[in-house]
Amino acid sequence: MKILVTGAAGFLGRRIIAALLGQSESPDTHVIAADLTECPIADPRVDRRVGAVEDESFMRAIVERDVDVVYHLAAVLSGQSETEFDVGMRVNVDGTRRLLEACRLAARPPRVVFSSTIAALGGTLPPIVPETQVVEPESSYGAAKAICELLVSEYSRRGFVDGISCRVPTVAIRPGAPNSALSSFVSGIVREPLAGVDAICPVPLDTRIWISSPDAATWNLVHAGHIATSSLGSRRTVNLPGLSVTPGEMLDSLERLAGGDVRARVRVEVDPRTARIVGTWPGAFDISRALRLGFTVDHDIDSVIRQFMTTA
Amino acid sequence: MKILVTGAAGFLGRRIIAALLGQSESPDTHVIAADLTECPIADPRVDRRVGAVEDESFMRAIVERDVDVVYHLAAVLSGQSETEFDVGMRVNVDGTRRLLEACRLAARPPRVVFSSTIAALGGTLPPIVPETQVVEPESSYGAAKAICELLVSEYSRRGFVDGISCRVPTVAIRPGAPNSALSSFVSGIVREPLAGVDAICPVPLDTRIWISSPDAATWNLVHAGHIATSSLGSRRTVNLPGLSVTPGEMLDSLERLAGGDVRARVRVEVDPRTARIVGTWPGAFDISRALRLGFTVDHDIDSVIRQFMTTA
Repeated sequence: MKILVTGAAGFLGRRIIAALLGQSESPDTHVIAADLTECPIADPRVDRRVGAVEDESFMRAIVERDVDVVYHLAAVLSGQSETEFDVGMRVNVDGTRRLLEACRLAARPPRVVFSSTIAALGGTLPPIVPETQVVEPESSYGAAKAICELLVSEYSRRGFVDGISCRVPTVAIRPGAPNSALSSFVSGIVREPLAGVDAICPVPLDTRIWISSPDAATWNLVHAGHIATSSLGSRRTVNLPGLSVTPGEMLDSLERLAGGDVRARVRVEVDPRTARIVGTWPGAFDISRALRLGFTVDHDIDSVIRQFMTTA
Repeated sequence: MKILVTGAAGFLGRRIIAALLGQSESPDTHVIAADLTECPIADPRVDRRVGAVEDESFMRAIVERDVDVVYHLAAVLSGQSETEFDVGMRVNVDGTRRLLEACRLAARPPRVVFSSTIAALGGTLPPIVPETQVVEPESSYGAAKAICELLVSEYSRRGFVDGISCRVPTVAIRPGAPNSALSSFVSGIVREPLAGVDAICPVPLDTRIWISSPDAATWNLVHAGHIATSSLGSRRTVNLPGLSVTPGEMLDSLERLAGGDVRARVRVEVDPRTARIVGTWPGAFDISRALRLGFTVDHDIDSVIRQFMTTA
């Protein structure tokens, strides 16, 4: 079993690789871990490659002829995509197309799990977004990912790959430093106060946000590498399950689990640009199809925050 | 007023240019007519350029700094897109992106009228397709056009262009020879028998087809160059009005207007590939938004066929 992970040094990339190595008893599991920096996982089954997805020769090198599954996570995130339009298009659109083109050269059409985003959706949205919602992104990140969903679907229809696009909710709570995603604060308003650091919530406390714990997001992406894509019908895009929460509800949970002093370290200071774009993202989805496809969902916000407190 | 038309030597391109020259009293109207072959319209106000949309330097040359309106019609049609995937992607996706990139260099964001297609839609469709229908193309042509709709929308959101994507119905009745569109037969089953030539209908007679006469399609595309795009809201794509007809209804009309002998020259011989793809295209749309935006619609199938009989 040969598996390629792009964005392998990133938060989800590392977790997916760890999960793949952990769940497999077979010494035949071989992971090619590609990223701009070296993936930190040192394991004889992991072959670490350093390069950029925009680089056609790098893409051809990492997509080996006998690859079985590709997890394509490499991307420029939403904040940087908005400020650096051309970089976002080059990495998120052209990089994905290069990957799909390289996959056409494989011996068999590989499973491609494309990490898409709920930011593909925008415009006037119903309170519960159905699977058939028209795609009207209102950010450059969302637009690029929506274009790639169409590419994954078309390359699959042509039989070049066997693809599935997973719209990943905002993953929280992430450990470590803030990143360039506009949703970075969703982790920050829990992570920083727990570390004794003051934090700012840049959106109103009643903003609806669609989140997934790192464990659930990792499990679901790994699962997407295994499922029978025939069960997807002609719709190759899946809205992964998540929880619909507000920053206010997250802070209530934080107070329950860590006390009022910790919560008091967070103050609201609305940043109009962040609030405007985050406000266009859907706050809740109909997840019945995803559950039928065997994807999993977090129990509640307390369990999400507890997951961070016990593992970070 | 400087206007660029790509695909200017094509059927709709020539008609749009003729309409633009006819409706304008101003000697300041200047049309750059670009295509792979020279546009046949000889007029001092028309500047004819020969080149390919995939050619970046050609695109930069034809998108002059002071361009006001761009009609982007150049495309590889549905039949060729299906048999020559890479050519379709290069012309229909990369060519459109090159055009949009060239437009970023203009003095003011030009109006870009992008000629999209009802083939952007597919999957499970309701009998009357709403504007909010999720986009699930089932052809390479439709997929490429759907990707371009997202590009036009995103480049507009960023303020690089002021774009509108018009999903053009199957244009019938076209004069001349069959083309590489899978919908070519829709014109053929009327045009050929009227010329005393036998014709084949490659889809079942009760297949629902969404059509527009050449006059209505031309008028609507020209109109898209004039309307206030603020009236579009965040949705830059419009399903142009059309008529929902079946080949059977078209032949009934042909018989009414030209007699049973003419109709008898058409026989049904289903081609599975054509029937399969044409069968995924929507057969009827809710056109209330398009009518509110001032687009026009043909009266009935008799008037569509009569338009061909009196002008071809």
